[in-house]
Amino acid sequence: MTRKASIIGGGVIGGGWAARFLLNGWDVAVFDPDPEAERKLGEVLANARAALPALSDVPMPAEGRLSFAKSIGDAVQGADYIQESVSERLDLKHRVLAQIQQAASGVPIGSSTSGFKPSELQQGAADPTTIFVAHPFNPVYLLPLAEIVPSAKNDPEIIERAKEILRDIGMFPLHVRKEIDAHIADRFLEAVWREALWLVKDGVATTEEIDEAIRMGFGLRWGQMGLFETYRVAGGEAGMKHFMAQFGPALKWPWTRLTDVPDFTEELVDLIAGQSDAQSGKYTIRELERIRDRNLIGFLRALKERDWGAGKVLLDHDRRRRAAFHEAAGTGEGAPLVMAHMQVLPGWIDYNGHMTESRYLFAASETSDAFLRLIGADMDYVAGGHSYYTAESHILHLGEAKLGDRLTGSLQVLDADDKRLHIFIRIQRGEETLATIEQMLLHVDMKAGRTCPAAAAVRARLGPIAEAHKALPRPAAAGRHVGQRKP
Amino acid sequence: MTRKASIIGGGVIGGGWAARFLLNGWDVAVFDPDPEAERKLGEVLANARAALPALSDVPMPAEGRLSFAKSIGDAVQGADYIQESVSERLDLKHRVLAQIQQAASGVPIGSSTSGFKPSELQQGAADPTTIFVAHPFNPVYLLPLAEIVPSAKNDPEIIERAKEILRDIGMFPLHVRKEIDAHIADRFLEAVWREALWLVKDGVATTEEIDEAIRMGFGLRWGQMGLFETYRVAGGEAGMKHFMAQFGPALKWPWTRLTDVPDFTEELVDLIAGQSDAQSGKYTIRELERIRDRNLIGFLRALKERDWGAGKVLLDHDRRRRAAFHEAAGTGEGAPLVMAHMQVLPGWIDYNGHMTESRYLFAASETSDAFLRLIGADMDYVAGGHSYYTAESHILHLGEAKLGDRLTGSLQVLDADDKRLHIFIRIQRGEETLATIEQMLLHVDMKAGRTCPAAAAVRARLGPIAEAHKALPRPAAAGRHVGQRKP
Repeated sequence: MTRKASIIGGGVIGGGWAARFLLNGWDVAVFDPDPEAERKLGEVLANARAALPALSDVPMPAEGRLSFAKSIGDAVQGADYIQESVSERLDLKHRVLAQIQQAASGVPIGSSTSGFKPSELQQGAADPTTIFVAHPFNPVYLLPLAEIVPSAKNDPEIIERAKEILRDIGMFPLHVRKEIDAHIADRFLEAVWREALWLVKDGVATTEEIDEAIRMGFGLRWGQMGLFETYRVAGGEAGMKHFMAQFGPALKWPWTRLTDVPDFTEELVDLIAGQSDAQSGKYTIRELERIRDRNLIGFLRALKERDWGAGKVLLDHDRRRRAAFHEAAGTGEGAPLVMAHMQVLPGWIDYNGHMTESRYLFAASETSDAFLRLIGADMDYVAGGHSYYTAESHILHLGEAKLGDRLTGSLQVLDADDKRLHIFIRIQRGEETLATIEQMLLHVDMKAGRTCPAAAAVRARLGPIAEAHKALPRPAAAGRHVGQRKP
Repeated sequence: MTRKASIIGGGVIGGGWAARFLLNGWDVAVFDPDPEAERKLGEVLANARAALPALSDVPMPAEGRLSFAKSIGDAVQGADYIQESVSERLDLKHRVLAQIQQAASGVPIGSSTSGFKPSELQQGAADPTTIFVAHPFNPVYLLPLAEIVPSAKNDPEIIERAKEILRDIGMFPLHVRKEIDAHIADRFLEAVWREALWLVKDGVATTEEIDEAIRMGFGLRWGQMGLFETYRVAGGEAGMKHFMAQFGPALKWPWTRLTDVPDFTEELVDLIAGQSDAQSGKYTIRELERIRDRNLIGFLRALKERDWGAGKVLLDHDRRRRAAFHEAAGTGEGAPLVMAHMQVLPGWIDYNGHMTESRYLFAASETSDAFLRLIGADMDYVAGGHSYYTAESHILHLGEAKLGDRLTGSLQVLDADDKRLHIFIRIQRGEETLATIEQMLLHVDMKAGRTCPAAAAVRARLGPIAEAHKALPRPAAAGRHVGQRKP
């Protein structure tokens, strides 16, 4: 059943929340009195549609329905989750929260605030138990972090429910156990920001030089390990204690402008804005957003391949959704057997704008893996020490798959005996065959590292299919070698 | 002509410098009185050998010769560049610098110091003009940043020569124009470190929670844009001034522990070391180093694909070396061209525990893409509307790649004419061939969607290679079809 999220305040942050919910199949109702809200949110959503699916290796669910409500009361009607992202003024937030609670009770209400603690948000609330901080990071549709900060007044069940919902939309809810000004991450951002302003003001470095000092060095480290794990490694075999013994005393050195806050004068603003123009002015903000998103996709993809950090969050999210997708897809019928349904994802595209060639073989593997599961050569079978290995493949390219195409993979058994399984796979878009893959699979005893007959149960399932497929016409491309003239 | 770098102090940082120079073809002489120095440096070098080549799309130069000198005088004899990475004690550094200058004059002498300014290093030096700060970031063999900090006493020609040398080994020399305690980046690290210690001490967050707050959010942003460019984007179309108007006032809020430095007590050290063990203790430091390096390779590769930030540094480095490679490699006479170096990552493994079959074709694509770039059919060429498309492939599996294996992809041209490019790729682990991929590529006019002759410049580069490869033995697997009996 489709669930509903209500987004109160539809700026960059609220829009990011809306996009994340929508692309994960939730219906979303937005309330924002800004007459430009619909256009602005549309731009965030366009960015998100181009970015978030690139992180998924499971087809995305059908996008939810987006609506704009005329009042807060309308927006939160029937909501399963409510996120407040209005301006950082406590009186305004109190008014908005009161209106939300007049129309929705017992529903988690997260606030995107970076400046207020949950106990401050809860002041004077009809029901403080459902109001908490859920502080995301821009771009909300790509970065997994959401700092979840409750106060002592919160209902723990509401907090757990909220965390589960955020996981459902692919986020990493970080439970902050003690409320504190600026939560956790923004305290670091603030410390660095203050130091950076000093360096610019004192003429030590420009905004560009400061950005290079970050992204050419420790910024790369911090995206995959944090501060402490990085230093643990730096300590070498002797570990964290050794590192602290080395680096600890530096705390007393005058390495930062500890006690002062630079005056926020017009001159300082102009100095920084001017340097920033010189550094990045050749790109529009929209261009920078797309560059940033593509970079983040690259980082997140890299971490996903390594099952690490934010990449692990993505893999876990795929696992949840894969189960749901398999239930819905069924096994297919007929001969050749349609074994796989796939969608061409942004990460599958090469620099020509087409599906990259190794993804055709990937699509074939999805098809043959499903077939092997069908005949009982599944994960348990592999765990028992036997498997089918591919010995040889021939791929013929007949057409080009493009972003978003829905593909099917069908499989025809050309020949089979106790040890050998000769198959022919077609990757199709509708009726059009885009590629054919002919393969010879050998059944192996994995431990001994040599071929052996398949188990009787597997042969019993494979036999009738192979027999039935003898009646199918033999594909013209079967037995072809590379460069052979077309018949 | 091979150039020589002298590395004085061979710990994690000195070893990283040595590895970077060696892998970029420089001879390296190391002086370090530690009897364990050779073993320790060997471990850093092993990590670097497994990591740095994975960033290159041009074959690496032949590794330089590594030697261990008995004295500083021996080590710096005939050096073109000298890097000092001894312990952070000013009296020790002064002694070492004096010994260096007794044996080498007019040679750039960089210091890895994070704690001392160049004017401090130059105190009492026979020749202050050649001594400057060249502050790198761990792992030195992967992170491009080196903060170059001169004082007013430095010879500008020496500084420019040093920067050019660092670019030659793939680094990004950031010229810091005013000397200041801790240079630039470490001031930020210090500010965050101090704030993080407070959060742990006050029980707000554990080391693990702090690391998650960094790597799930802003850490990902900072690896590709820095602080100011990130905020410029956050400001939206209104830009930097708007952002500063919004965020500026927060400087006065109590978001960080501005004025205090936490006492560095035994209890605080134990608290942090204990939490770090709980967080990361399941991995050894060596394992964490390899995980970190693989993640950094992924990030840097992602940026390289996008020609952005640290990835642009890599591309520039490739461009320099490609010219040199073309001169040295000629046409690959007598041997197939080794075009790609890869490592089997965790995401490449299938349920059998081997490299999944589509990754063999992926490895072949990495190889053929590098070859296409070599002959000038690169991204710009594709942007101009022409490309080589794969029409057909045959894959023969001969062995199994496993997690962590280092693979090379070599390419032999079987036949080429104006439109057709018939190639044979070997994916090897050392001398062992794990798979061969035979492919027919067709040169296409992408807009018209049909084959056409390649550009004259491409044919001019391809021709001599194809001609030279005619002398190579034709592979037995070429022309094979699936299921064909072995000869």
